[in-house]
Amino acid sequence: MNARYRRLQVALQRARLQAIALNPGPSLTYLTGLHFHLMERPVVAFFTAEGQQAVVLPRLEAPKVAGRDALQPFFYGDDPSQWQAAFREAIAALGLERARIGVEPTRLRVLELRYLEAAAPHAVFPSAEEVLADLRVVKDADELAAMQRAVDIAQRALEAALAGFRAGMTERELAAEVVVQLLRHGSEPDLPFQPIVAAGPNAANPHAVPTERPIQRGDLLIIDWGATWEGYFSDLTRTFAVGEVDEELARIAAVAAQANAAGRAAARAGISAGEVDAAARSVIAAAGYGAYFTHRTGHGLGLDVHERPFIFGGNDEILRPGMTFTVEPGIYLPGRGGARVEDDVVITAEGARSLSDLPRALRRLE
Amino acid sequence: MNARYRRLQVALQRARLQAIALNPGPSLTYLTGLHFHLMERPVVAFFTAEGQQAVVLPRLEAPKVAGRDALQPFFYGDDPSQWQAAFREAIAALGLERARIGVEPTRLRVLELRYLEAAAPHAVFPSAEEVLADLRVVKDADELAAMQRAVDIAQRALEAALAGFRAGMTERELAAEVVVQLLRHGSEPDLPFQPIVAAGPNAANPHAVPTERPIQRGDLLIIDWGATWEGYFSDLTRTFAVGEVDEELARIAAVAAQANAAGRAAARAGISAGEVDAAARSVIAAAGYGAYFTHRTGHGLGLDVHERPFIFGGNDEILRPGMTFTVEPGIYLPGRGGARVEDDVVITAEGARSLSDLPRALRRLE
Repeated sequence: MNARYRRLQVALQRARLQAIALNPGPSLTYLTGLHFHLMERPVVAFFTAEGQQAVVLPRLEAPKVAGRDALQPFFYGDDPSQWQAAFREAIAALGLERARIGVEPTRLRVLELRYLEAAAPHAVFPSAEEVLADLRVVKDADELAAMQRAVDIAQRALEAALAGFRAGMTERELAAEVVVQLLRHGSEPDLPFQPIVAAGPNAANPHAVPTERPIQRGDLLIIDWGATWEGYFSDLTRTFAVGEVDEELARIAAVAAQANAAGRAAARAGISAGEVDAAARSVIAAAGYGAYFTHRTGHGLGLDVHERPFIFGGNDEILRPGMTFTVEPGIYLPGRGGARVEDDVVITAEGARSLSDLPRALRRLE
Repeated sequence: MNARYRRLQVALQRARLQAIALNPGPSLTYLTGLHFHLMERPVVAFFTAEGQQAVVLPRLEAPKVAGRDALQPFFYGDDPSQWQAAFREAIAALGLERARIGVEPTRLRVLELRYLEAAAPHAVFPSAEEVLADLRVVKDADELAAMQRAVDIAQRALEAALAGFRAGMTERELAAEVVVQLLRHGSEPDLPFQPIVAAGPNAANPHAVPTERPIQRGDLLIIDWGATWEGYFSDLTRTFAVGEVDEELARIAAVAAQANAAGRAAARAGISAGEVDAAARSVIAAAGYGAYFTHRTGHGLGLDVHERPFIFGGNDEILRPGMTFTVEPGIYLPGRGGARVEDDVVITAEGARSLSDLPRALRRLE
């Protein structure tokens, strides 16, 4: 049994959970190194507080768990009418018929919940999200090294993509080029998210999807992209001026960069996540754009692209060394454009260190 | 209101559902054209049998629903303690406190289910999966045109990737090249799945993940890849010989291609999905490899990469014109290698037509 599972056992006992039931995702990867794709067929792994591991999965996935003697497999075939039986057998083998079995509400689907409920009608399924978030929120040296590599890949990939930039490209063309360069520079293929390439009015939407609109002189251009290494993510944003942009657009880009710097400077162990948000937000408010910063300042980052700690106003979660999160203030002027500057930082003994170091000042592209 | 929603209303009434609650995914896209990424923040859209539409979503997603007057938005902010209220308001506005509200168990997460249960403690949430699958299972001409384009992109992309093949490349390098070529040839960035590139012993795992192992002379090489167009997917597989392969490996590749041809030839309106499986499977069994064909023959394909009809033994779902699915028999010899040949077919008035036409015979790469 590995050290992470031993820490989980302690946490389960403290939370009075007899087990957790996980479907494929970051927590399962964190505990076992296993990767499965979530499909219409359920895959559920069980970890008990007593140290027993089991997994319900399709028979054709057998090669993935071969040789893992600690993990007892319960296979099922192609016919969905057989699937429930595999869940019943697993619950019976682990003695969980009347247990408190923790689940991850943001990962487990109604599909798996219904199989679990039918297999253990006297069990309850409370959220174990905080148990697992606590387990994962402080990164060890190996995890930080993987994140640094994901940042390095992303930064080199962006420079390569920008080398091919020309005004008149569509947002979609540039987004595809960013993906190509991420893969060429060594990112694992499961990117943290599809890059956002948003120019002109589309940049006023913080969650824009790249469109067929050509990127034009006078646009602010937001690129929000990231890479994956060993399952760990990077998540960065820079804003560019395409040719000459008007004075106010240049100003919001400068204010967003100042707010980013203020957020990074404030971040340190012992203060709350909310204080980082306040530090970044106050810069934007002081510049008169408070109403146009419509989202939180950041989010934790690791095996999930959004995890604890969440950097929003009033969040009293205290930052600790080894926590990793984004600082990404933005300003969005409807119909005109937007600017956002995002870095990935880690809390250290001394303060906070940015894993990313691409220049943050508004850079002009032609 | 569009024609798809009108058909949904009829289906909801027939299923005695007052509404469905959908989170982001293919069904929501099918009904509205809207795309959202599933994140830690819940997004749930409601469609009532009476024709009312509402959506609970983060305020920063407001631009996505702007101008959609039929869709009543219920926004929430960054603080999770506010989220429940938005669900309560939506349920109250639609009068669903005591309703039967259909959900998609393979899509809806425990996260959204718990918010719905708390907002409507007297409601019930049965599966509406079959209602929605029925709605989506027969493709119209626009959908078939999108799938044909997704197939065409995938085929051209594979040829481009193979042009750069050389023995000694790793599976991961070739997989990255396939992705690059899919994007260069116009695939939307949300690929149906990460390509499988599996050679030698790794090809004996039907769901292999590309490894750092160099692809070697004497290997069978399986490439399973697909493209996306307007949200519709293609999903193809071809098997290659790297240099000279031994006699038995060449034989299983030939048998897999014969089984694929038999499955496609059997497919027509009026027979069951199980009969297509039997047609392909009997070819492999007759050749003595029945025990090494360890998965179903295929699955429906459309806005989901795995949807109805599922092509497995005993499935009595009757095929109808406009249904689209894969035919992908394979043979897997543990420790030695595997072969699979996969096409995407559509049931027509006359039989079945393959959307894909890349040569299926074992092709030798050097």
